[in-house]
Amino acid sequence: MGDPLKPKAIVLLSGGLDSTTCAAWALREGYEVVALSLDYGQRQRIELERARAVATRLGVEHRVVKVDLAVLGGSALTDPALDVPKDRDEEAIGAGVPVTYVPARNTILLSLALGLAEVVDARHLVIGVNRLDYSGYPDCRAPFLRAFEELAQVATRAGAEEGVRFEVLAPLLDLSKADIVRLARSLEAPIELTHSCYDPDPEGRSCGRCDACRLRLRGFAEAGCEDPIPYAEGGAP
Amino acid sequence: MGDPLKPKAIVLLSGGLDSTTCAAWALREGYEVVALSLDYGQRQRIELERARAVATRLGVEHRVVKVDLAVLGGSALTDPALDVPKDRDEEAIGAGVPVTYVPARNTILLSLALGLAEVVDARHLVIGVNRLDYSGYPDCRAPFLRAFEELAQVATRAGAEEGVRFEVLAPLLDLSKADIVRLARSLEAPIELTHSCYDPDPEGRSCGRCDACRLRLRGFAEAGCEDPIPYAEGGAP
Repeated sequence: MGDPLKPKAIVLLSGGLDSTTCAAWALREGYEVVALSLDYGQRQRIELERARAVATRLGVEHRVVKVDLAVLGGSALTDPALDVPKDRDEEAIGAGVPVTYVPARNTILLSLALGLAEVVDARHLVIGVNRLDYSGYPDCRAPFLRAFEELAQVATRAGAEEGVRFEVLAPLLDLSKADIVRLARSLEAPIELTHSCYDPDPEGRSCGRCDACRLRLRGFAEAGCEDPIPYAEGGAP
Repeated sequence: MGDPLKPKAIVLLSGGLDSTTCAAWALREGYEVVALSLDYGQRQRIELERARAVATRLGVEHRVVKVDLAVLGGSALTDPALDVPKDRDEEAIGAGVPVTYVPARNTILLSLALGLAEVVDARHLVIGVNRLDYSGYPDCRAPFLRAFEELAQVATRAGAEEGVRFEVLAPLLDLSKADIVRLARSLEAPIELTHSCYDPDPEGRSCGRCDACRLRLRGFAEAGCEDPIPYAEGGAP
């Protein structure tokens, strides 16, 4: 039933490095964590397995909501007809909204987290957006997070009737990928269970060449340590 | 492919009287309508059938997104363990947040509509919230709708990068149920295909006793016309 003295936080957990670090951070901050993953029809089913493994390792409750965002279309992460870009340099990765953008994804994620927060009586929603996401994804910036908090006040029973304040916590917001790697290590987050690749091989090994892999690998290199997950032949740097 | 001169609107279509009236209204206003229904694990599967029938009759595109909100729990509309209240008077129906409240439902609905709007290049989201909903559901009031518009500006590629304004249209907002019945009739909306009951019998006939039925029947009575849908024995007034 959880400790009634501990505040509860809903942590959005994709199974990636960022959200896993967030979950470990929320535990260290003293929250009782309820992890929420979205099964949104992502082509890479391995993400959900890793989210499950991370939640189990951290010993936190985990719920998975199925939402078939593929019905909406528009993203290489759900639409098999769109190609995942490979071998792009930093400049190309940073320019414009990427094809891997899932329309309104963080709005949908936070909405579901808000619904769960109402049910389990949590007031904090934790999301792993960070500086790297800024350039490409509009729903990863501070103004979006503040606007969502405003919405939560008027959207919910607790906010509208009882004056409760909901808070969206984004502990990685101003961190680089190298900073996140350092934070994950200092929190002893289970980095080895995480998955970031948009295009892993059939054994689940990361390609090392998509934007997510390139940014991840650069983060580890800058933090001066090795990424413990397996990469496909010729994929690792 | 649609008429490029017509603005597109995403209409949230539950298959009920209110949302069906909204779809007919949006067509009359000159929008190209894309109807969006949520398969949220509602106990009453008939709602989705009716939404489909309404969209077909109106000749509009229809998408159904599956989201298993039952994973979140907390509502009599998704949780078989909670009873749907019956035979309540107006005062009881109006007091507080009802057990049929689905946590953050309209936030989730509008988030999905926003995702679809990004993909199909629509700028208008139409939702059938109205005066009757005010009392019980916090996410049916004007401040919620305005907060969602603010969120949409900073949440999306179009809003954040191109300065496009999203608008949430709630044409029924200040209408009573009798007003909605009158509007539906003037628009020749397919009222006979709609469904409102929270607890229909196995043949799909409405119970006439749950809050949704009572409010609907009173609306028709006040508008001075008969509700064309079938009610169970002893359910109709």
